[in-house]
Amino acid sequence: MVAPSPTTVSGKQPGHPGPVRVVIIGGGFAGVDAAKAFKDKDVHVTLIDKRNYNLFVPLLYQVASSQLTQEHVAQPLRHMFRDQRNVDVVFNEAIDIDEENRLVILAADDPIPYDYLIMAAGARDSYFGNDQWAEYAWGLKNLEDAARIQRQILLNFELAEVETDRAERERLLTYVLVGGGPTGVEMAGAIAELARFTLTREYRNIDTRHTRIVLLEGMDRIFPAFDSKLSVAATRDLEKLGVEVRTKAMVTNVDATGVEINNEERIEAGLIIWAAGIQGAAINDGVSDVAELDRGKRVIVTPELHIAGHPEIFVVGDTAHVPGPEGKPLPGVAQVAQQGARHAAENILRAMEGESYTPFVYKDYGSMATIGRNHAVAQIGKMQFTGYLAWAIWAFIHILRLVNFRNRVFVFWKWMWDYIGYNRSGRIITGYRHQPVNDGK
Amino acid sequence: MVAPSPTTVSGKQPGHPGPVRVVIIGGGFAGVDAAKAFKDKDVHVTLIDKRNYNLFVPLLYQVASSQLTQEHVAQPLRHMFRDQRNVDVVFNEAIDIDEENRLVILAADDPIPYDYLIMAAGARDSYFGNDQWAEYAWGLKNLEDAARIQRQILLNFELAEVETDRAERERLLTYVLVGGGPTGVEMAGAIAELARFTLTREYRNIDTRHTRIVLLEGMDRIFPAFDSKLSVAATRDLEKLGVEVRTKAMVTNVDATGVEINNEERIEAGLIIWAAGIQGAAINDGVSDVAELDRGKRVIVTPELHIAGHPEIFVVGDTAHVPGPEGKPLPGVAQVAQQGARHAAENILRAMEGESYTPFVYKDYGSMATIGRNHAVAQIGKMQFTGYLAWAIWAFIHILRLVNFRNRVFVFWKWMWDYIGYNRSGRIITGYRHQPVNDGK
Repeated sequence: MVAPSPTTVSGKQPGHPGPVRVVIIGGGFAGVDAAKAFKDKDVHVTLIDKRNYNLFVPLLYQVASSQLTQEHVAQPLRHMFRDQRNVDVVFNEAIDIDEENRLVILAADDPIPYDYLIMAAGARDSYFGNDQWAEYAWGLKNLEDAARIQRQILLNFELAEVETDRAERERLLTYVLVGGGPTGVEMAGAIAELARFTLTREYRNIDTRHTRIVLLEGMDRIFPAFDSKLSVAATRDLEKLGVEVRTKAMVTNVDATGVEINNEERIEAGLIIWAAGIQGAAINDGVSDVAELDRGKRVIVTPELHIAGHPEIFVVGDTAHVPGPEGKPLPGVAQVAQQGARHAAENILRAMEGESYTPFVYKDYGSMATIGRNHAVAQIGKMQFTGYLAWAIWAFIHILRLVNFRNRVFVFWKWMWDYIGYNRSGRIITGYRHQPVNDGK
Repeated sequence: MVAPSPTTVSGKQPGHPGPVRVVIIGGGFAGVDAAKAFKDKDVHVTLIDKRNYNLFVPLLYQVASSQLTQEHVAQPLRHMFRDQRNVDVVFNEAIDIDEENRLVILAADDPIPYDYLIMAAGARDSYFGNDQWAEYAWGLKNLEDAARIQRQILLNFELAEVETDRAERERLLTYVLVGGGPTGVEMAGAIAELARFTLTREYRNIDTRHTRIVLLEGMDRIFPAFDSKLSVAATRDLEKLGVEVRTKAMVTNVDATGVEINNEERIEAGLIIWAAGIQGAAINDGVSDVAELDRGKRVIVTPELHIAGHPEIFVVGDTAHVPGPEGKPLPGVAQVAQQGARHAAENILRAMEGESYTPFVYKDYGSMATIGRNHAVAQIGKMQFTGYLAWAIWAFIHILRLVNFRNRVFVFWKWMWDYIGYNRSGRIITGYRHQPVNDGK
């Protein structure tokens, strides 16, 4: 069942005419960078995504909190590759892999054959065996998630405005964020600013400044991936914004109106946002007969980033378990995804030249997260930054990383404008008050 | 059953303390201008809308054609009135009127009492007795409509890209616009530019320039409300963009895959947009026991803009039938709505001072519509403009009419940017390919 190593052929697979066929599943950071790496090469790339756009996930929380719009953080994949003629963008869902015949099975239309496959379908929320919590504790991984959270935040203020029962009003104005990583911290800060500054003059019956925002972290500090000094700085910044930071707080139950912590305390909440765990994409099940998955459903790969025994199937990004130093897998961050994707593409090009694969070496350029405007924490090599300086670095780097010049200019301008006015323009509630829209999932 | 004339009381209604209570149904052009007219007056205004935003309808077609985003053309009502403290914005749907007890009945929460009522709930699509066509021929009256049309346009190109049957591919690339007024013409031009310029390099299997766009008008010329010279100019501009302009073309049937014209010809279409007729809002049924409705379900009002026999109920905007010169009702345009709303508010303030109502006199400042970029037709008093000059006037006036300075700047900048590049950034398809989202209606 082990497929013949593609490194034994030079540049072309037998049995079909034309250039080597590389199929990429997923148009996120990893998939896009892999496709770009084949520019001007004698390779035909098929880039499959169930959405028609690439999403800049690090700013997704700004869409959920009405600071940016979906157009600022999403870019049609076709548009990105309009001038790279060897890339064919396929708007479809990959649902299975036929390793023997080297085919990607789609939800619609015929299977797509590949000589090399790069799996880069990303991650989804993990509720650690409590999948029933998903209905009440909403994740933030895509534009539909962001739209649903944005709508509920705005709707909760509306419902609180007309609620006569005091306890229910307080529940509607309570937000619980589960997970003290960047997503939880950034959303907590963004909701706090919305409630404390932007909305203050708009309601007649409620004082939005009394909104309660609770950030729950199971470990003994938030930002466990950062140095502990940065955890202290971030906690201080959040508390200045009125966010309750609760550490050693494990969520033991979730229902429609609240969460239970450590089996003993209950918090009634109008919205629960889940940022506590991720797992590999569903398509990983399609290779579970030939590859090993870890507990988080990520595909375990060789140091060369392919499935053991299948040198023609690479797995990169959040959906891959790449062995790192000290036996721990590399973290699920954009840098690992992008560097890994480029390395996988280089290995394919190397094989086409008759050379051997090389192992992937990850270079960590640092991490950062923002806490409301003006505050951030950043760890760049051995240097640490907090406060305004970290925020300025954060803003600069995120503008630069946006996909094209147009979005950089528009987002920069929007940020500057809103920075002056504390305003958020896009506070549109889709659908009617008592008729939420389907979230498209 | 005839309520006592509020002109008999001076400034306050008996039976309740506090200022005079004016309730406005609808936060469109008319409702917003009526509420603003009570600024700094001893009046408590309740502004009810089933959406939480005011919509700048003249640019809605640009959202449907991926030129602007919903945030550019919609503004939260609470934000607009955050500093006018005598306005209470109620995010709820008015479903009935109790004229005897002077109450507005809501879909949720308690009824709202009024001393004066201003009905300004706008218009909805009319299919002239063929309501079953609504499923296939989509109107363009709100943001949900625009999102649905935008999604289907982008999706049709995607489906055509992978369609192997030639006839089906041609159907997917055929757009039919029913109605040769501004909405039909502007959408036809916008789709033509999208297909002929913006998308040309993005697909690999189809040539988007071969997209067929058919504009159907039942009368003998498009823009029947304009001077016939402008109809000729607009037809020429549309034909230059490759739009087929069909006059004397009555739609006699509509189904899932096409339209029938004049009982004899069929056009297979991937998307049918309905811009052929409107009728008054559903809430008008709530006053049908005390007021006369015309054939278009609009409430017929006195020259003073109230319901005959009910001087405390005003009806303004697209939902009102205001008698005009030569016995014809005034047209359903923003100018009539805004001037009428201000006049209704002034009549209420007049009554509070013990004065009598005055009849409404409409002042027509002109009409205009745009055909793609660079071309428009405009009729201002006796002057007529076409081509680039009309387009510049159109762009200038529409920027000025946007609700706030922020949106003016952002839209102007977006237009300038896209003008240079022919680009449209926001081409995001919500939901997956085979799982359309609920349109929220």
